[in-house]
Amino acid sequence: MSDRREFRDLVEPEKAREAIASLEIAPEAETIPLSEARERVLAERVDAQLDVPGFDRASMDGYAVQARDTFGADESDPIMLDITGAVHAGAEPTVTVASGVCAEISTGAVLPDGADAVVVVERTDELEGGLEVRTSVAPGDNVMFAGADIASGARALGPGTELTARDIGLLSALGCEEVTVQRQPRVGIVSTGDELVRPGGSLDHGRGEIYDVNSATIAAGVEEAGGETVLYPHAGDDYDEMERLLSQAADECDLVLSSGSTSASAVDVIYRVIERRGDLLIHGVAVKPGKPMLIGRLDQNDSAGQSGDSAYIGLPGYPVSALTIFRTFVAPAIRSAAGRSEPRTATIDGQMAVEERYDQGRMRLMPVGLLENTDGETLVYPVDKGSGATTSLVDADGVVTVDPDTSYLANGEDVTVTLFSPAVRPPTLLGVGEDDPALNRFLDQVDQPRYLSVGSRESLRRLRNGLPDVAVTAGPVKRDVEATVLGGWEREWGLLVPDGNPESVTSLADLVDRDLRFVNRTTDSGLRTSLANAVAGVAEKRGVDRHDLVKAIDGFEFAVRAYESPARKVLSGDADVGLGLRTTAAELGLGFVSLGTQSVRVRANPDRTEKDGVRELESAVTDVEETLAEMPGYQPRPQ
Amino acid sequence: MSDRREFRDLVEPEKAREAIASLEIAPEAETIPLSEARERVLAERVDAQLDVPGFDRASMDGYAVQARDTFGADESDPIMLDITGAVHAGAEPTVTVASGVCAEISTGAVLPDGADAVVVVERTDELEGGLEVRTSVAPGDNVMFAGADIASGARALGPGTELTARDIGLLSALGCEEVTVQRQPRVGIVSTGDELVRPGGSLDHGRGEIYDVNSATIAAGVEEAGGETVLYPHAGDDYDEMERLLSQAADECDLVLSSGSTSASAVDVIYRVIERRGDLLIHGVAVKPGKPMLIGRLDQNDSAGQSGDSAYIGLPGYPVSALTIFRTFVAPAIRSAAGRSEPRTATIDGQMAVEERYDQGRMRLMPVGLLENTDGETLVYPVDKGSGATTSLVDADGVVTVDPDTSYLANGEDVTVTLFSPAVRPPTLLGVGEDDPALNRFLDQVDQPRYLSVGSRESLRRLRNGLPDVAVTAGPVKRDVEATVLGGWEREWGLLVPDGNPESVTSLADLVDRDLRFVNRTTDSGLRTSLANAVAGVAEKRGVDRHDLVKAIDGFEFAVRAYESPARKVLSGDADVGLGLRTTAAELGLGFVSLGTQSVRVRANPDRTEKDGVRELESAVTDVEETLAEMPGYQPRPQ
Repeated sequence: MSDRREFRDLVEPEKAREAIASLEIAPEAETIPLSEARERVLAERVDAQLDVPGFDRASMDGYAVQARDTFGADESDPIMLDITGAVHAGAEPTVTVASGVCAEISTGAVLPDGADAVVVVERTDELEGGLEVRTSVAPGDNVMFAGADIASGARALGPGTELTARDIGLLSALGCEEVTVQRQPRVGIVSTGDELVRPGGSLDHGRGEIYDVNSATIAAGVEEAGGETVLYPHAGDDYDEMERLLSQAADECDLVLSSGSTSASAVDVIYRVIERRGDLLIHGVAVKPGKPMLIGRLDQNDSAGQSGDSAYIGLPGYPVSALTIFRTFVAPAIRSAAGRSEPRTATIDGQMAVEERYDQGRMRLMPVGLLENTDGETLVYPVDKGSGATTSLVDADGVVTVDPDTSYLANGEDVTVTLFSPAVRPPTLLGVGEDDPALNRFLDQVDQPRYLSVGSRESLRRLRNGLPDVAVTAGPVKRDVEATVLGGWEREWGLLVPDGNPESVTSLADLVDRDLRFVNRTTDSGLRTSLANAVAGVAEKRGVDRHDLVKAIDGFEFAVRAYESPARKVLSGDADVGLGLRTTAAELGLGFVSLGTQSVRVRANPDRTEKDGVRELESAVTDVEETLAEMPGYQPRPQ
Repeated sequence: MSDRREFRDLVEPEKAREAIASLEIAPEAETIPLSEARERVLAERVDAQLDVPGFDRASMDGYAVQARDTFGADESDPIMLDITGAVHAGAEPTVTVASGVCAEISTGAVLPDGADAVVVVERTDELEGGLEVRTSVAPGDNVMFAGADIASGARALGPGTELTARDIGLLSALGCEEVTVQRQPRVGIVSTGDELVRPGGSLDHGRGEIYDVNSATIAAGVEEAGGETVLYPHAGDDYDEMERLLSQAADECDLVLSSGSTSASAVDVIYRVIERRGDLLIHGVAVKPGKPMLIGRLDQNDSAGQSGDSAYIGLPGYPVSALTIFRTFVAPAIRSAAGRSEPRTATIDGQMAVEERYDQGRMRLMPVGLLENTDGETLVYPVDKGSGATTSLVDADGVVTVDPDTSYLANGEDVTVTLFSPAVRPPTLLGVGEDDPALNRFLDQVDQPRYLSVGSRESLRRLRNGLPDVAVTAGPVKRDVEATVLGGWEREWGLLVPDGNPESVTSLADLVDRDLRFVNRTTDSGLRTSLANAVAGVAEKRGVDRHDLVKAIDGFEFAVRAYESPARKVLSGDADVGLGLRTTAAELGLGFVSLGTQSVRVRANPDRTEKDGVRELESAVTDVEETLAEMPGYQPRPQ
């Protein structure tokens, strides 16, 4: 293991930022059609090249007049004018307006020669012999003079303007068909690791293959920040392949990001490529996560034969770490290169909902979840499943930066959260507890809920600590938590067996007495509790120790995490019998041996019953008949 | 004018909203590649179809062991294990781990049979004869078990999730190559009016042609709201053409928007098309602006031969009115059809910075500009240039909805502003005053300034009223306003003549004494004030009334609004002499007859000198030498 590189000379995060700032990512400006300019950034000031309007223009429907003809006219004392003709928008006037004469005119039409005002149609009547005018107008009334809107030479939009609908409107008024904008930096993404498979491919679990998460995540992040992405085929840990890919990416892109494999050997291969084919500025940053970050330059020979540099940043391999480092260090650099500013939604202020200790002397980028209390205040809690967990990507909303000197964040302390994406919306409901397919459907009726499948017992512990809005339990639980029951239902549970029940399993006793491979649920699950109680019942009936029965079940300790997981093991032939629900058996075409029913209860934090999300869930679980009717083994809570 | 339709039966805005809600705009779901899914909205729940990881996985680099072999080991009392081989990520283990044995393992690799934990590399040393382990581990340490991240069957993402980088990451982890999302509603845009020309075309001012502003503005608004746009060639006011275009748009789109011509006759043509080819639900809404809004349905025969309806909404023709009505009534409907929620940035709270009266008994959608005071509070002021002005598009940031019963908004009153686009950024600086080409360059150094070219005198009046941050004057002004001078410079002004000075103009007297066509600046301009003073000087020298001299100048009253406008008139041959700056003459290749220099002064509101935008401008106008050196006739303020 002598070639494993330890990141011992970690630089401070500020140095990493400076190194990134020293890379020249910003591409030149480019000229694009106005129709594609939304969200792009003006590279230079736009001055009006013409007067808008280009002529004196009627701004109302009515009659073009010489204003002095109308002086003194009112409702009780109208004046009469001859009508000489009409002027329409988009047509050249064929009339002139002399004293005593008027011309019908539509909004937007050219004010005819001689006229200096417009009388609106509502204050006139066409009578035999002419027009009755019942108001007086001053010169210029209801007329927009040439250049009155925008005058030629006026500053219309400044450099750095991020183009929205209104700016595009102004540019249209100026006749701009094209605009010169900052080119979007082109960002190449190279993911590395022999174990990675692109989504859509099939996985060989025996080889430890997993889907490539970082490429798509970082690509989306790049696009959010205003860059354009080029995805490269992912590289194994082979030096030659890595060098070829990184060189190609450097030739084609303004910035190359690598990520993927977390193994030190892969990082080491990249390290050597950068040193040989470029310039490694930083290797290792004193930040958690993200220690193995690399920053440098790669030689670039672009398609025009120009040689130069492409910027290079190596991200950590774990998805949450990669996104965290990307969001903190890389996205701001891409935004800046694209000329875009951080949107107002990039951060959100809140208060810690728990206390948090940390003292490793390194800056910490702490993934956090967000939650609102009834007063609409934002609560912040750390999410730490180990950074290898991809679910942290959606269980967390963003990152709190904790200084190296800060070893303690108090409950209630103010913190600022940098959201993973400016468009991230904090959930409207935080639920925790048992997983249940009916619950999944009810959650669909809540706008943006978050549900953490932590099991029944743990859900009550968390509810007691006050963080979640809602806890969901299944089976017997100790009810020592103050809570408001929102609703509940019954579900039938038992043993899942292959279709047709080839082993003719009929009861729990078969598991104990026969040589059947069983797959259980983890101990946090209410299903597991009900199973343990049933085993105890058999033990009591037989007059034996329940521990002996448990030992006799092959696979009692082979526990998996979700309601469908044992079923999948049975389906794949990895087990003969699994613990599960009748509805899962029906859904997946398995046989089912019923062992009983258990209650599912949805309990709310009494302080949060007025929250929109809680009310939405309450409304969903109050009227359950229709949903449960479609689910074999489910029924409403008995009255 | 008998065919002009008056909108007398106006419905309340709430009825208009209900009518729009009754239109079925939401298209069916569609399945798209994950790589295109950013910003799209999940149409259905995504449950995990596999365990992640799919195998027991090393989460650190180190050695796979049987945990019980390590019990008791520590730094002072290490244990030794035999090394049987290595397991790499992406490769099938070829070893098994028995008691007393270990296998090198990299992060992400499959835990080999027999092993139940990983010892991290940092707590080991490879010695001759085996591995020294200096720590004890428990079963499961540094291992992520199959399904521990996401278990098969678990609810991964709910319907309605707006996909950001993190969600795309989770979907990648689940192997999703495609996702089922809400299809973006297809919105057809038909702009009407004989006078409209697409940007890029050339305008015939004599016919009153103008560029089509609404098509591009509304298209950008549709895209911001999550729709897809189809632009149709614009239609004149001809019935048959309008019917053909609207029918085609209805066949191809979920929603058809028309806008463009403001003339009652064009609205009337559309009105008749909708009545004949569909169903007109609402004609006229009690809202200002927007009275002539139309809401209905158009018959649809889609490409698959299905017949049905397309929704139809007719917008007012003036750009600000069109965008205001679009943003208030239409964008929410498109968002809802696309499954998207209003972003947090869609609105901003602030306080009125002036008082505003209004009592027409109709709901008012008041275009407003935003401004921050030094405390970071948002100030709101009405922008009302007449809704025909396209510059209001960028001088305003959004809209305040004022109830029909509200006739008065007090200075300081709390209001909520709906931004024209969620991405609109309020300006960092509000400047008002004289227009000046050097100032334009200095403004380029400020991040997102807003500058209203209101002239010198008006700028001081507004500064006195306290709204703007900065006022810029040119020439002599009464300095009765408390202000902090940020900087200033001198500019040379005079008469602009064609290149080569064909009429041999040498002084102001030529304008008075000879038959030359002159073009002046408007009375708000400091240039005009300096010219008037110069004319008074000539009058005094001659001992005549200055009014007589003014009358003798052909075109003294022909006044245009910006510093370059007179120059353009001279260039186009519409005038022989124009009022302007030496630098403009140089820029446009005109001759120049100098009449003097005038001071340009930049003054700040004393309460706002600490604002970022003001400081940026101050820094720009403090160090002016380099910029002015490039501008003929400009020089720094004399010391």
